[in-house]
Amino acid sequence: MKKIVTFGEVMMRLAPPGFAKFNQAHSLNVVYGGTEANVAVSLAYFGCQAVHVTRFPDHALGRAATATLRFHGVDTSRITYGPGRLGLYFLETGAVSRASQIIYDRYDSAFSLIQPGDFDWDAILAGADWFHWSGITPALSQQAADCLLEAIQTANRLGVKVSGDIYFRSNLWKYGKTPQEILPALTAGCDLVLGNQANFEELYGVKAGTFDDACHGMQALFPRIRYFTDTERESVSASHNRLTAKIFDGTTMFSSEVYDITHIIDRIGGGDAYLAGLIYGLLTTDDPQYAVEFGAAASALKHTVEGDANLVTVPEIEALVQGDKSGRLRR
Amino acid sequence: MKKIVTFGEVMMRLAPPGFAKFNQAHSLNVVYGGTEANVAVSLAYFGCQAVHVTRFPDHALGRAATATLRFHGVDTSRITYGPGRLGLYFLETGAVSRASQIIYDRYDSAFSLIQPGDFDWDAILAGADWFHWSGITPALSQQAADCLLEAIQTANRLGVKVSGDIYFRSNLWKYGKTPQEILPALTAGCDLVLGNQANFEELYGVKAGTFDDACHGMQALFPRIRYFTDTERESVSASHNRLTAKIFDGTTMFSSEVYDITHIIDRIGGGDAYLAGLIYGLLTTDDPQYAVEFGAAASALKHTVEGDANLVTVPEIEALVQGDKSGRLRR
Amino acid sequence: MKKIVTFGEVMMRLAPPGFAKFNQAHSLNVVYGGTEANVAVSLAYFGCQAVHVTRFPDHALGRAATATLRFHGVDTSRITYGPGRLGLYFLETGAVSRASQIIYDRYDSAFSLIQPGDFDWDAILAGADWFHWSGITPALSQQAADCLLEAIQTANRLGVKVSGDIYFRSNLWKYGKTPQEILPALTAGCDLVLGNQANFEELYGVKAGTFDDACHGMQALFPRIRYFTDTERESVSASHNRLTAKIFDGTTMFSSEVYDITHIIDRIGGGDAYLAGLIYGLLTTDDPQYAVEFGAAASALKHTVEGDANLVTVPEIEALVQGDKSGRLRR
Amino acid sequence: MKKIVTFGEVMMRLAPPGFAKFNQAHSLNVVYGGTEANVAVSLAYFGCQAVHVTRFPDHALGRAATATLRFHGVDTSRITYGPGRLGLYFLETGAVSRASQIIYDRYDSAFSLIQPGDFDWDAILAGADWFHWSGITPALSQQAADCLLEAIQTANRLGVKVSGDIYFRSNLWKYGKTPQEILPALTAGCDLVLGNQANFEELYGVKAGTFDDACHGMQALFPRIRYFTDTERESVSASHNRLTAKIFDGTTMFSSEVYDITHIIDRIGGGDAYLAGLIYGLLTTDDPQYAVEFGAAASALKHTVEGDANLVTVPEIEALVQGDKSGRLRR
Amino acid sequence: MKKIVTFGEVMMRLAPPGFAKFNQAHSLNVVYGGTEANVAVSLAYFGCQAVHVTRFPDHALGRAATATLRFHGVDTSRITYGPGRLGLYFLETGAVSRASQIIYDRYDSAFSLIQPGDFDWDAILAGADWFHWSGITPALSQQAADCLLEAIQTANRLGVKVSGDIYFRSNLWKYGKTPQEILPALTAGCDLVLGNQANFEELYGVKAGTFDDACHGMQALFPRIRYFTDTERESVSASHNRLTAKIFDGTTMFSSEVYDITHIIDRIGGGDAYLAGLIYGLLTTDDPQYAVEFGAAASALKHTVEGDANLVTVPEIEALVQGDKSGRLRR
Amino acid sequence: MKKIVTFGEVMMRLAPPGFAKFNQAHSLNVVYGGTEANVAVSLAYFGCQAVHVTRFPDHALGRAATATLRFHGVDTSRITYGPGRLGLYFLETGAVSRASQIIYDRYDSAFSLIQPGDFDWDAILAGADWFHWSGITPALSQQAADCLLEAIQTANRLGVKVSGDIYFRSNLWKYGKTPQEILPALTAGCDLVLGNQANFEELYGVKAGTFDDACHGMQALFPRIRYFTDTERESVSASHNRLTAKIFDGTTMFSSEVYDITHIIDRIGGGDAYLAGLIYGLLTTDDPQYAVEFGAAASALKHTVEGDANLVTVPEIEALVQGDKSGRLRR
Ligand SMILES: [Ca+2]
Ligand SMILES: [Ca+2]
Ligand SMILES: [Ca+2]
Ligand SMILES: [Ca+2]
Ligand SMILES: [Ca+2]
Ligand SMILES: [Ca+2]
Ligand SMILES: [Ca+2]
Ligand SMILES: [Ca+2]
Ligand SMILES: [Ca+2]
Ligand SMILES: [Ca+2]
Ligand SMILES: [Ca+2]
Ligand SMILES: [Ca+2]
Ligand code: NI
Ligand code: NI
Ligand code: NI
Ligand code: NI
Ligand code: NI
Ligand code: NI
Ligand code: NI
Ligand code: NI
Ligand code: NI
Ligand code: NI
Ligand code: NI
Ligand code: NI
Ligand code: NI
Ligand code: NI
Ligand code: NI
Ligand code: NI
Ligand code: NI
Ligand code: NI
Repeated sequence: MKKIVTFGEVMMRLAPPGFAKFNQAHSLNVVYGGTEANVAVSLAYFGCQAVHVTRFPDHALGRAATATLRFHGVDTSRITYGPGRLGLYFLETGAVSRASQIIYDRYDSAFSLIQPGDFDWDAILAGADWFHWSGITPALSQQAADCLLEAIQTANRLGVKVSGDIYFRSNLWKYGKTPQEILPALTAGCDLVLGNQANFEELYGVKAGTFDDACHGMQALFPRIRYFTDTERESVSASHNRLTAKIFDGTTMFSSEVYDITHIIDRIGGGDAYLAGLIYGLLTTDDPQYAVEFGAAASALKHTVEGDANLVTVPEIEALVQGDKSGRLRR
Repeated sequence: MKKIVTFGEVMMRLAPPGFAKFNQAHSLNVVYGGTEANVAVSLAYFGCQAVHVTRFPDHALGRAATATLRFHGVDTSRITYGPGRLGLYFLETGAVSRASQIIYDRYDSAFSLIQPGDFDWDAILAGADWFHWSGITPALSQQAADCLLEAIQTANRLGVKVSGDIYFRSNLWKYGKTPQEILPALTAGCDLVLGNQANFEELYGVKAGTFDDACHGMQALFPRIRYFTDTERESVSASHNRLTAKIFDGTTMFSSEVYDITHIIDRIGGGDAYLAGLIYGLLTTDDPQYAVEFGAAASALKHTVEGDANLVTVPEIEALVQGDKSGRLRR
Repeated sequence: MKKIVTFGEVMMRLAPPGFAKFNQAHSLNVVYGGTEANVAVSLAYFGCQAVHVTRFPDHALGRAATATLRFHGVDTSRITYGPGRLGLYFLETGAVSRASQIIYDRYDSAFSLIQPGDFDWDAILAGADWFHWSGITPALSQQAADCLLEAIQTANRLGVKVSGDIYFRSNLWKYGKTPQEILPALTAGCDLVLGNQANFEELYGVKAGTFDDACHGMQALFPRIRYFTDTERESVSASHNRLTAKIFDGTTMFSSEVYDITHIIDRIGGGDAYLAGLIYGLLTTDDPQYAVEFGAAASALKHTVEGDANLVTVPEIEALVQGDKSGRLRR
Repeated sequence: MKKIVTFGEVMMRLAPPGFAKFNQAHSLNVVYGGTEANVAVSLAYFGCQAVHVTRFPDHALGRAATATLRFHGVDTSRITYGPGRLGLYFLETGAVSRASQIIYDRYDSAFSLIQPGDFDWDAILAGADWFHWSGITPALSQQAADCLLEAIQTANRLGVKVSGDIYFRSNLWKYGKTPQEILPALTAGCDLVLGNQANFEELYGVKAGTFDDACHGMQALFPRIRYFTDTERESVSASHNRLTAKIFDGTTMFSSEVYDITHIIDRIGGGDAYLAGLIYGLLTTDDPQYAVEFGAAASALKHTVEGDANLVTVPEIEALVQGDKSGRLRR
Repeated sequence: MKKIVTFGEVMMRLAPPGFAKFNQAHSLNVVYGGTEANVAVSLAYFGCQAVHVTRFPDHALGRAATATLRFHGVDTSRITYGPGRLGLYFLETGAVSRASQIIYDRYDSAFSLIQPGDFDWDAILAGADWFHWSGITPALSQQAADCLLEAIQTANRLGVKVSGDIYFRSNLWKYGKTPQEILPALTAGCDLVLGNQANFEELYGVKAGTFDDACHGMQALFPRIRYFTDTERESVSASHNRLTAKIFDGTTMFSSEVYDITHIIDRIGGGDAYLAGLIYGLLTTDDPQYAVEFGAAASALKHTVEGDANLVTVPEIEALVQGDKSGRLRR
Repeated sequence: MKKIVTFGEVMMRLAPPGFAKFNQAHSLNVVYGGTEANVAVSLAYFGCQAVHVTRFPDHALGRAATATLRFHGVDTSRITYGPGRLGLYFLETGAVSRASQIIYDRYDSAFSLIQPGDFDWDAILAGADWFHWSGITPALSQQAADCLLEAIQTANRLGVKVSGDIYFRSNLWKYGKTPQEILPALTAGCDLVLGNQANFEELYGVKAGTFDDACHGMQALFPRIRYFTDTERESVSASHNRLTAKIFDGTTMFSSEVYDITHIIDRIGGGDAYLAGLIYGLLTTDDPQYAVEFGAAASALKHTVEGDANLVTVPEIEALVQGDKSGRLRR
């Protein structure tokens, strides 16, 4: 059984039922999500030991967040509790030409108040096959960035593969540092990076005409990185997207099938579902073509599952990778 | 801030949740709607002072109807209370080839019992930019028709622009007069009319081969009318409609973009949303091309909002008018 | 008024609301269904006397199942109660490329414990026009198969037309007999059979290159059968199917319109809805072309109705047969 | 099996969920009820043939009302359909010192438009043991009163026992006649009357110091009446009532146990549940003491059942009559 | 019509449905509340002009909060929008011996970031009869305390009566000042104070053996205060409380009836409902005995209304003041 | 941290919402419960390592049952999967004099098909402090009884304390053995037994006039048993129970406070909550008086928690043990 460790904030998501607008809702549906925890949940449904590391406030809702991750099979034994808020986000689900909207309310979370030394990374990463982080963590606070650096360096030392989702959200960086100051050291410890050309230019100054040239530029700066990956989403409407993914191993660009998702139920976490599938594919086959197909199919299925995280299993994804898009009733 | 006055009956709408048929429902969702009030709600979301004038029964449900309009930002200070019922309608929402169905239960409403003199139109219309009515009001009772005529004549006297949605529902006229007897005097006070060729022929005897010829015929009869407008709906199925709109200024026919609404949530009030958008466009720009585009985009968005009224704001509509139909998540 | 008798097990269906996966559900929606009872409900909505014969456990849920059939207009006066369970099935509704899933929990039902002689078929079938059964009943137990044979033989004796849905579910046969041993005697009593080429070969050894040759082969074995019918479903995705049907009268193959069901609400019971429409068409017109069109349109509409059974009426189906697929609002 | 015929209007009841006030409700729960139909439903749960006679509008909601009565086991074969509305009432459920409130919206119902001759009372009452009516029917319209008189006279002729719930609601009489003009002829045909001293004085001029003297006075006027009955409700609060009942056979006053209903779920129809229990007791034992105990226990249980009608069975009531008020879990 | 101005923070309240514990909830019911706004809502239902002054974040949820207050009839024309969060609180409703629990998440709210000068108190208070504040506002931030002082001084200057609910929540004071430093200047401007002996001692150093002696001590310090008031709650259990109130006018202690609230639905805001009733009573009668009875009855009714605010009207309260606790159904 | 191992079947519980009767429910709420697992969940909320051992069917609902136990903090690492059904039970919740009703549907469960040797009891019980079983397991099948005997003997060998809830449900024993044949060997391995006098006589032939004499008789037969315990429930009504508990240590009878549970939310699992509290008390203090008080208070709180299992924590129980029954709001 593969062991994957993920690290990052988990928020309570509050969403009006169905397609109600914020001011039409008299109740809000509750799930818990965060980009790294979404990856962990997905890998737990694939049968892996997925350990999510985070901190929650020490009250009933922090405990409920942990319980929900545990429900989904995530190993929560490394979660700690401390002062600070539970980060929240509010989601209004759109349709056709009406866009979905998110209102974030995540500042001053318990997670953002973690301190270097709070987590025993040697113990946490012992026996692990993979460590995954995203660019959200170093954006939250200097301490969170420092903790992350500890984790990456420990992973590198222990021979644990590292992936970073450096997809860039500029509006998160509020504590006085720029991503350009913080991200390079973290990126240097990665074996796999998810990002696009624009990110590579903005964050690391890599200018290139194509994704594959940009990857070459990145490899020159960060020689440890073996794989670059990204998804491409064509948004026909809020209800209908087309999705494909690609992975570059320094030599070859492997592309997945294009998925036509004609009746979207929930597109939040689609990228996280892709990464979980990709990591699973790489860990179990080391075949980038298989891995990118598995990841893209996983992501397509995620769009039919309510909530931030992908709750589908390996056989469901494999059937789709084999080409059965019919959605035929299974008895 | 523009001030618009609307006048007409508001009903309680009772609808099974989702796509349940009437006899599958153990609860009915409640909203309040009426063609003129729907226009007012929409304009309130656009930031206008939208005054709706109506009468409700003097009981808890009449008060709840007022409170709901007030929730949506409508100025309800001119609403009165009196004897009579709260009009109702029951809505079953269809899908694909199964049509939606409406059962009306609106007779003997408090609104239909209003009397000329009940409303102080000089005060109500003071400072107003626009007055809007529909052909439903004169169909309900002689008194309602008389009240409406008072209102239109006052608006004309005060220089308030008048729009009439004369789209014809023959089955409403039960009190002994025909629309052909009543509507001409009301129509004569209009600056803008929403209707189609068939309406113009049936109601006013205007025969013409094309909509634009029919408009010329109407202008001959009703010289005050400056604009004629209509929407065209292609009903691919109950779940998928195509929508466009046009406005004729006596010289030029301005047509909007065609909107492909592939996953309809609620098409009730789509025409009212159009009219609200059109009025807003004309009041703020006096540019018929912009106004028809704004109205059509507003109507397209309405089809994704549950309830009779359009709850979207100007920036959402403007983004769609600018051509972004992608429905991409906004954070 | 036509009288139709149906015979078979009815299960409680438990389904997460909307598109929730099994482990996301904190409540399960309840309906009652079974392939033969679904036919009866549909025929009751068409205005026929539809008598469903079954047995339930003698407790509050068995009584609730009866009450629900009675709600839908089915004549439940022949239902009996006895030991055994209420059969259940759990349904998770899929979307796009995620398939719906069924978990059956139907063994040891009260129905499977019926005994020959339990039902007075002469009385039940007196004055009936049609008797309908499916291949599920003889798969449940020897006693159920024996009861069914009694019923078919009585129908044949009384001149009641017999239809059998022999669509084959191999995993049901657990009591020691094979379908090849049991089905031929039952099939021999049929006037109409629903099945496909593969069924005819597997169950009766009829090998043929085409459906129409397979029907000829069947007629050689079972000379009473006048009609063979089947539906064809193209599963574009779990949310979008295309459906057509055909009926062969020994000479001519009649095919229906193809229905594009782009926003499926519930596809369970689509075949049962077809058969109910076909039976209604044959009973009222004896015109196979009309009957197959009526059945296919009925089935298309069923896909927009939540639950196992079709709750639409004759005028709704006739409008669709006449070609109005617009789903336009009816007031 | 006893056959009871009931006659009266059935309304759709629309109630906010739980204890929400009218203006807090975004959905309304739907049940169907009417004092006479409530008696019929209750008797159907007791295993009687309970035939309810009424008229509904000929639309989907009228059909749903019939289907709901049929669900509960009522024989609906005598229900007819015609022009007019479906009567409605809105119910807000109170608690402790906040009273429940009802808003009626029942005028112009299809039932109020029935005409003498519309119902074939000889056929309907053939073989019946009991006919039940209430003072609401003659209050609705002259035609309804005339139909009721036909029914009572037919029952008298056929030897069917007649009960009348003459509990007086003065605000219903709007069509020009007074109850004093209409009720005596109807009351004269009764074998059992439910009413109190105040009713007897106001409606028939019977002045008396005690209920039992009032009954004597009534018997002098209406010699056919054998039984007088009434319930007494002590309203400790909206959540807690005490209930008892009594029946007078002209000689003896029989009183029931007092029931302390400390956690009321729904008190609507408590009187109807009592009458159904009393009628059942009289029909099966002819023992007024047993009948009044059975009726009171039935009514007590009704207060724990949501909706207008009592859905409990004979064994549940008998256990309570035997004195087991413990509500102990039954497995 | 009386005009009352209230000033304070409004939070979104998120509560599991019914009695679910926090970790049993998959949705949270949404209402908006705050102690001063609760007073305003209640007064709006009494027919007063109730102006609530606050600041919300400028996003869809801030607008929804305003719309909800407007729904309830509050004059929201003085509400402003600015940076900062929407304050939240989570409520788990207990029963019997299980206590309700609140988790506050209100720091850094838009309201706490207001600045002196932000509100034009002369305009806001023009024509007002009463101004109401609570001790929560000065606890949130120095700026909020400063704004409040501006308001109180303006009210004093304009002759507007001032009430302060100084009930003390020590855990709110986080910005570096103590309540002992801040509250005296605010209290000095009051005409009516709600508080208890312990508050008077802890906050102002007034030591006294009885409430009435404590009031005398307070009057010595704050000569403007004419009335002192408080409620007394006996908590039999989370489901059953007893409630009474008293008011002291410097000479006489007036006490209300004791209310036995045996089936609590929602006790949040019970004190606010009392104050609203008391203020209404004083404003309309200037009779402390009537006012305290009206306030206590209002508070008792509040315990049967879900949400923070009291939605009952004057006639409902007057009936209870007259002594009718029966909760009898009103038709 | 104490480690407790529990062993037994877990069922899906399906219950109409609120107080709806079975035939009023259109959805059923889902929780998972079983007497031994309920003990485990409760102990997990107390902070213990609670390992539940069971077998589920290998499908999505079996996995959901495991996930739900994991959500509640139970160690599910010893749960296995195999053929057979998921046991079910249906629960209708009563009120006042209407009893709750349970319909079991648990035969042929995956758990009942376990075989001796299936569980590695040495590994499972290693380091454990306590093992708990109930009389339901040996009633299900000979194999289940054999597995249980293995477990008890292993526990005895390893010095793990053993408790057995031998409360007798005669209708479960269907496989050919009597409880009198099977239970003595299991009881002999117990250190604590929950049962009453009637059980002791019926199952083991111990006749005695009092509970304490019956315990002496039991100790003569089963010398290992140190503690006998039982709860006493006075069922005032389905909504109001009084509860107390006692424990006998061979010498002294320790009794708990009597709890008046006046507004029951869910009484299922009240006994399991008591046992969990008692075990916790004995494990942490070895003081029978404290343990019985802790258990009784835990059980009282359980009656306010929806579902089979008690979700309260140690501080909540300790507050109640200290005597605070006020249910006062905690902020
Ligand atoms: Ca959603
Ligand atoms: Ca969503
Ligand atoms: Ca809808
Ligand atoms: Ca709709
Ligand atoms: Ca579904
Ligand atoms: Ca479905
Ligand atoms: Ca209710
Ligand atoms: Ca009720
Ligand atoms: Ca609540
Ligand atoms: Ca509450
Ligand atoms: Ca319950
Ligand atoms: Ca329960
Ligand atoms: Ni609401
Ligand atoms: Ni599309
Ligand atoms: Ni994400
Ligand atoms: Ni229902
Ligand atoms: Ni389409
Ligand atoms: Ni409209
Ligand atoms: Ni749940
Ligand atoms: Ni499609
Ligand atoms: Ni089927
Ligand atoms: Ni709403
Ligand atoms: Ni009480
Ligand atoms: Ni009634
Ligand atoms: Ni959930
Ligand atoms: Ni109490
Ligand atoms: Ni408050
Ligand atoms: Ni239903
Ligand atoms: Ni009680
Ligand atoms: Ni239990």
